[in-house]
Amino acid sequence: MLELRQLALLCGLQACAAVHAAAAAGIPAAITEVPSQVGVMVGFPPAPENQVTLRNYATPRFMRWTLAHMSSVFNTERVSRGSGMPTALPQGQPLDVDAIEVGWQGRQIPMTEAYRILGADALLVMHRGQVVFERYFGDMTPATLHAANSCTKSFVGTLAQTLITEGRLDPDAPASRYVPELASSALGSARIRDLLDMRANFRIGDDVHRAGSLQVAALQAYGVYPRPANYAGPDGAIAMMLAAKPTTPHGVGPMRYDNATAEALGWVLSRVTGLSVPDLISQRFWAPMGAERDGDFLLDSRKMPIAAFGLQSDARDLARFGEMIRNHGRVGDKQVIPAAVIDEIRRGGDRAAFAASPDGAVLPGGSYHDMWWFNHDDLDSFQCQGQFAQRVWIAPKAQTVIVLLSSDPDASRSREPLRLGAFRAIARALNR
Amino acid sequence: MLELRQLALLCGLQACAAVHAAAAAGIPAAITEVPSQVGVMVGFPPAPENQVTLRNYATPRFMRWTLAHMSSVFNTERVSRGSGMPTALPQGQPLDVDAIEVGWQGRQIPMTEAYRILGADALLVMHRGQVVFERYFGDMTPATLHAANSCTKSFVGTLAQTLITEGRLDPDAPASRYVPELASSALGSARIRDLLDMRANFRIGDDVHRAGSLQVAALQAYGVYPRPANYAGPDGAIAMMLAAKPTTPHGVGPMRYDNATAEALGWVLSRVTGLSVPDLISQRFWAPMGAERDGDFLLDSRKMPIAAFGLQSDARDLARFGEMIRNHGRVGDKQVIPAAVIDEIRRGGDRAAFAASPDGAVLPGGSYHDMWWFNHDDLDSFQCQGQFAQRVWIAPKAQTVIVLLSSDPDASRSREPLRLGAFRAIARALNR
Repeated sequence: MLELRQLALLCGLQACAAVHAAAAAGIPAAITEVPSQVGVMVGFPPAPENQVTLRNYATPRFMRWTLAHMSSVFNTERVSRGSGMPTALPQGQPLDVDAIEVGWQGRQIPMTEAYRILGADALLVMHRGQVVFERYFGDMTPATLHAANSCTKSFVGTLAQTLITEGRLDPDAPASRYVPELASSALGSARIRDLLDMRANFRIGDDVHRAGSLQVAALQAYGVYPRPANYAGPDGAIAMMLAAKPTTPHGVGPMRYDNATAEALGWVLSRVTGLSVPDLISQRFWAPMGAERDGDFLLDSRKMPIAAFGLQSDARDLARFGEMIRNHGRVGDKQVIPAAVIDEIRRGGDRAAFAASPDGAVLPGGSYHDMWWFNHDDLDSFQCQGQFAQRVWIAPKAQTVIVLLSSDPDASRSREPLRLGAFRAIARALNR
Repeated sequence: MLELRQLALLCGLQACAAVHAAAAAGIPAAITEVPSQVGVMVGFPPAPENQVTLRNYATPRFMRWTLAHMSSVFNTERVSRGSGMPTALPQGQPLDVDAIEVGWQGRQIPMTEAYRILGADALLVMHRGQVVFERYFGDMTPATLHAANSCTKSFVGTLAQTLITEGRLDPDAPASRYVPELASSALGSARIRDLLDMRANFRIGDDVHRAGSLQVAALQAYGVYPRPANYAGPDGAIAMMLAAKPTTPHGVGPMRYDNATAEALGWVLSRVTGLSVPDLISQRFWAPMGAERDGDFLLDSRKMPIAAFGLQSDARDLARFGEMIRNHGRVGDKQVIPAAVIDEIRRGGDRAAFAASPDGAVLPGGSYHDMWWFNHDDLDSFQCQGQFAQRVWIAPKAQTVIVLLSSDPDASRSREPLRLGAFRAIARALNR
């Protein structure tokens, strides 16, 4: 099973329960080995056994390096910051996060131990719009782009909700109204709101109950994992979406997290606007918010940007994005995202549908809406989530935004209580 | 021959004379077709005939798109701008470049026609440190990264001269002193100064006299062009360098421009500093000069950065670099590159060796030194040069720096008189 978990890369958590059950016998630890200290890609040239390739990147030894060097392994497109000056990230009164304790497995542990257990690559804390803590681990630096993975979905959801607010997208229309090709796919009859809330029901291929192999199949379809010589699956995200077969009606039953659902929404966005998802993120968020660095965006085997998990960013620009969301869409005096969009997002989603999904056990009492994850807690906190534990956690009532980039390969998210517990402990310390 | 010329991508001009002779019958025009207007990579998805791949990128139809989307086709690494604020590029009194005329084929043509003949993608003119003209053509924008191709060599040469000035590199030492593996290659006995001035003599493979096929072989060795199933050539830049066989002694005879010579110098730099060439460019130039955007840097099939032609940059950051060189290494009050380095570079190279080389006919009276090209004209002008006509032209006596990024596939550089004529006409107009 270890290999299956290793291969559960960049992917959705659809089959989380199955992976969870499998992993219970031996949950993989977060990766804390520092690539440069163990020789990974060190030297000119690196020794053959230290060279990362498309074939070996998904191993524990190479994955931490890969998460911080995606364009060295895959094809990418830029998410442009435009040409303006970056918005300053003001420094606030520093918070001694190291001194905070957090509960884990029945005891209080120091945050310095939590960093290690969680496989932190970067931790950046903002309070009332100011940086109060910024730490990089291993080889990561403020200038490093790190895979955001499925945090990308929350960008896509926010874009879609913006187009809805602008009247350019009808949440009750089926996806096939915007992308006629989807009429032949089970995804075509899903309404935009079904896509936004992961309530589209369908299956792709025969492997729906086999988590590991399903995820490998998805990665091979995208073209970000080697295909066997006799590969006969879909070539690219579009072919994958077109292979979706109907199961139960959309919009009913448990929330059903699937990369193809986010891809379909990305496809709709591009058809409605004439712009790629990375260009939309650039024009709507990255440039107007004053990012300090271009992001990168993964391309599939047909060079279509991967809407489900394509974004790579530095920690500071994710913090700028999170702050903008917390601040009702404003950056300084500029309303970058309509406040009504943020209001709609923050309504959260259907808690019963969420509780009935495999994710219900990971985030008890949570929900999913507009491709964001909601905790429905006393801080009104919500977050984006990306595989290997990428998070932008937004706690409006604590005026806190936390960016965590990490290398935690546990697809079952068994360490989620520690992760959320750490975020809450930091927010408490800031608001004492 | 047309195909050979099309394939003469990103490469050196070593066999320029051969290509020139072949091309005389039908010199390829610059690419002025706008990719987005003819459907290239337009749509979600693009039609199959409009999709760029590793197999077709080198065709005239797709090359202009590719020069502005290198990371979408190849693997890359970032050239980080660091985390500071970009240095302002002050705007000066605008110059009406469109109204300037330039001599070409016995008549005066308007500069607007020259843009087209030269296949301009971007033209940025700085005078006394201020932007006086900035124009983008086709799909290019201020935020677009464009392949700088062999302009990269001038960055490598400037880095090497910096290490010499710092006493970390002995110009009289053989390359094998720094990279012992090179002892088995004809490149190992070349002195650092031979590498810097393209005076290393060797041959790789049997194709030395066949320009087109030699360049395809080099691209296949680097891994940036598809290899046949039965490919048995070198895998990566290092294997290519190790395949160099001796011919005549180094340092005598004509200047002999070769990508492998620049690669060897890049390898030496990385061994001396422990840093990759893109990291060196970042730490020595991009970050301290206040670049507004990360560059990208091509990787070979073994993920070694390609020192001979790896850099991609926006036009403004190339202008910042050129200004820094013109300004004796200073950016504002900060001495980023020791002035002695610029003094040494500006000495220029051996004119007789240059005249005896195929390049002598293209740049009459010129020379090559520290991986820069010298015109020895009344403006003391010199430049970096990259395939498909990338140029940063520096004219100290006219206090002028001009960045030209283009899509001119003519490897024979038959339009060099127009290109240099345009630069000089602009400098004259600025100093009237």
